[in-house]
Amino acid sequence: MPRALNFNAGPAALPLPALERAQAELLDFGGSGMSIMEQSHRGKEYDAVHEEALSLVRELLDVPADYDVLFMQGGATQQFATIPMNFIAPGKSADYVVTGAWGEKAVSEGQMAATMVGAQLRVACDAGQGEGKSKKYTRVPSASEVKVDAGASYVHVTSNETIHGVQYATEPGARFPVTGDVPLVCDMSSDFMWKKIDVTRFSLIYAGAQKNIGPSGVVVVIAKKDFVASGRKDLPTIFQYRVAAENNSLYNTPPTFGIYLIRNVLSWVKGEGGLPEMEKRNREKGRILYGVIDASSGFYSCPVERPSRSFMNVVFRLPTVELEDSFVIEAKKLKMVGLKGHRSVGGIRVSSYNAVKVEWVKALADFMADFAKSNG
Amino acid sequence: MPRALNFNAGPAALPLPALERAQAELLDFGGSGMSIMEQSHRGKEYDAVHEEALSLVRELLDVPADYDVLFMQGGATQQFATIPMNFIAPGKSADYVVTGAWGEKAVSEGQMAATMVGAQLRVACDAGQGEGKSKKYTRVPSASEVKVDAGASYVHVTSNETIHGVQYATEPGARFPVTGDVPLVCDMSSDFMWKKIDVTRFSLIYAGAQKNIGPSGVVVVIAKKDFVASGRKDLPTIFQYRVAAENNSLYNTPPTFGIYLIRNVLSWVKGEGGLPEMEKRNREKGRILYGVIDASSGFYSCPVERPSRSFMNVVFRLPTVELEDSFVIEAKKLKMVGLKGHRSVGGIRVSSYNAVKVEWVKALADFMADFAKSNG
Repeated sequence: MPRALNFNAGPAALPLPALERAQAELLDFGGSGMSIMEQSHRGKEYDAVHEEALSLVRELLDVPADYDVLFMQGGATQQFATIPMNFIAPGKSADYVVTGAWGEKAVSEGQMAATMVGAQLRVACDAGQGEGKSKKYTRVPSASEVKVDAGASYVHVTSNETIHGVQYATEPGARFPVTGDVPLVCDMSSDFMWKKIDVTRFSLIYAGAQKNIGPSGVVVVIAKKDFVASGRKDLPTIFQYRVAAENNSLYNTPPTFGIYLIRNVLSWVKGEGGLPEMEKRNREKGRILYGVIDASSGFYSCPVERPSRSFMNVVFRLPTVELEDSFVIEAKKLKMVGLKGHRSVGGIRVSSYNAVKVEWVKALADFMADFAKSNG
Repeated sequence: MPRALNFNAGPAALPLPALERAQAELLDFGGSGMSIMEQSHRGKEYDAVHEEALSLVRELLDVPADYDVLFMQGGATQQFATIPMNFIAPGKSADYVVTGAWGEKAVSEGQMAATMVGAQLRVACDAGQGEGKSKKYTRVPSASEVKVDAGASYVHVTSNETIHGVQYATEPGARFPVTGDVPLVCDMSSDFMWKKIDVTRFSLIYAGAQKNIGPSGVVVVIAKKDFVASGRKDLPTIFQYRVAAENNSLYNTPPTFGIYLIRNVLSWVKGEGGLPEMEKRNREKGRILYGVIDASSGFYSCPVERPSRSFMNVVFRLPTVELEDSFVIEAKKLKMVGLKGHRSVGGIRVSSYNAVKVEWVKALADFMADFAKSNG
């Protein structure tokens, strides 16, 4: 069976060589006579994998020595809770900037967590228009729109909104907020490692692995050591970043196979030329897709303002819902899957993470042009 | 490379057919042209796997309809925190029965969690002898030793202590405490599904998958629906069992590959004859190992009292630490791995979960007899 052209939003496409490597050694890892899944998390075979995965994150992103790299569980959703629990002191507050559905979830979950530990949380900026279910997110805010409370424990942003296709693309006009001395915390779940970033701008970055770097079940956290040290000590140990850091993410049994797969994926990324090469491909794919949209005379329309358009999740509408349904069905016949927009917003979504090939996007673009011609 | 004789304590041996199945379909699950890891957790391919895994747990353990079966993350260690958070009402208390190192951890982590939500936790019975690091656990308590507080929110027990080799429910004389109307909560991480149990005796059972049923990164929870409904509603949603139950363990992205592997393992268990067959093999393996120990005229000594001896983790000492080191080294030459006792207690530990073959244990028993003869 040929490989599908997998545009899933996450869990998403993984690089074939990373999967082939896993397949080849699934029954016998490194001549041990066991799968990596059957190894003790305290044994030397797994330890080498664990260290290599951590090192690859550091190397590919140039993570400075005064930052910890951690592997955690529970998805980004659990981070929504544990970040306020750890980093908002009792009676203090944190600022949230909302640019889509995931930012909204970070706020609602974070609010419950903050309340539980006697702290607060404030929406410093909501870039949405309208209310409730009809609320639309089409852009990241400008620097002047975000009024940071200088006493806030941190400012939280979502670098890429998977559902709304809104990204802080670090283009002119779509920059991360300037927070001064207030630590910046970022949910990078859906664009982690899509390109090189300046890690030092952030006090804490977190990302579910299942978009750009591995399977579901692992969250990568990159956090400044002094920020980690500032966290509360009266929480259950499993929720303390400090404890994870002190134990090199081996406080309890980690999801070993997921971390192993991250090793395989990042090893592939490195071999391909690292993050500069990933960025080149991702920008090329974005250029192709937005090019078709903008050249379609309105047959395809992207609701997102130009500087905030996501390179990871390209969202667009067709003239009617019937045409959108037909688009998804016809694409599937060509082995192009995962194109249906999130049920909360409808439309089409093309997720184009690191493992999505330029040639897949070219094939999709050809299909889009044909479909517009036949149905326009 | 021949398969190792894997006696690891967890992550542990998995059934070869379950791994071979994963290997065969790793690049193309069910003709989809994608790995199961690359499938959306909301798509029909993964959904079928998710449902099959849940159904197999229900079927193999005869889980009644008024119980939920959940897949969660964070390991048993996170359950140590989230159980008190959910199920001890503010100002109320829960009773803990401690029979080893994991029970101790459940208490210390649970204490922090209980305090965080304004509740309490009480050690109703500690079966250990001595204090601090020299504390020894050699048995489960008798029914009369456990004085349950009738007002407790629940009683917590650890069915099998992986480090100390102490297990409940194996023989008459090692029964679970009688708790009357107080709900019984059990950490079954290291003996989950080693045999059939009467689920109705428990209000909540939890188990990390990485011993008997899968890889690390997934926790299985079986909980009575009305107990789940009794949990607090003012916690972050990710920590509420209610939310996991209402969303069929798909509230956020689950660890899909781990759940898929559980499907493969339990499907193998079913094909082999289900839990009655697992119990038969596990008892046979225990009989062989304890037989060698008891016939060794004291060369091998098991510190655990007979009725509490674990069928999952057989622990024993040799006359000297040097002989223990030599035992581990010699065994490794025969491809027998994972035999070193936990660093906190020393000695030898043979973990003999469902996937550990009777023939491996026979080979180990032969080696033990030879080693005793040569060194006794």
